[in-house]
Amino acid sequence: MKRRHGSKTEIRATQGYRCRGRIWIEDSGKTFLGYGRVHLLEKIREYGSISRAAQSMKMSYKHAWDLVDSMNSHAATPLVKTSKGGKGGGGTQLTAAGEKAVENFKNLHARLFAFLEQETIRLQE
Amino acid sequence: MKRRHGSKTEIRATQGYRCRGRIWIEDSGKTFLGYGRVHLLEKIREYGSISRAAQSMKMSYKHAWDLVDSMNSHAATPLVKTSKGGKGGGGTQLTAAGEKAVENFKNLHARLFAFLEQETIRLQE
Repeated sequence: MKRRHGSKTEIRATQGYRCRGRIWIEDSGKTFLGYGRVHLLEKIREYGSISRAAQSMKMSYKHAWDLVDSMNSHAATPLVKTSKGGKGGGGTQLTAAGEKAVENFKNLHARLFAFLEQETIRLQE
Repeated sequence: MKRRHGSKTEIRATQGYRCRGRIWIEDSGKTFLGYGRVHLLEKIREYGSISRAAQSMKMSYKHAWDLVDSMNSHAATPLVKTSKGGKGGGGTQLTAAGEKAVENFKNLHARLFAFLEQETIRLQE
């Protein structure tokens, strides 16, 4: 059994290795927040409209609405608030909880990023 | 702008949130090692054969071989060694570098797991 005696550097010797990764938050086993969902929240903030946010992401309105519905139902308080208006739909905005969710997820990603950088250094040592 | 004043607990108040994630190692932007590849390496160790390992994972032989070829070409020294034999193919085994790659990846995943546990606690605080 050579495995216990192999050099520690075998998978480090070639330059250019990087540790990559992604995270998401589940609620009782179902996706609550991830990169796509947070990006959608940011686009909703930008456009003030689910349909325009969806369009900017080349996503169907139905899919975007389903994602918003899922996020709202998994959050303690809704992340997105729509005031129903005329044919074009009313204004849509992030709630304080929605803003906080975006911020928290970005902070979480920043901590993952630090972890991945550290692991990349370890691979290249 | 309520975003700066929102409670820090909005996305934590509901029980059952978990931080999930996955990692992989790239070499110059291309996948070198990930969960599926490491699982394949373990199955190759178990069966001593790429084709039987592939079969056990319901993967085509070609796909398994391509993955092994990719890992071997991205590693400083090959992770899998095949001694060519008769029609059924010769014996295949992990090299010391292959064993080390499996071990290193599992250790890396254990560190990610600890990170995710910590983040899950933070979500539930």
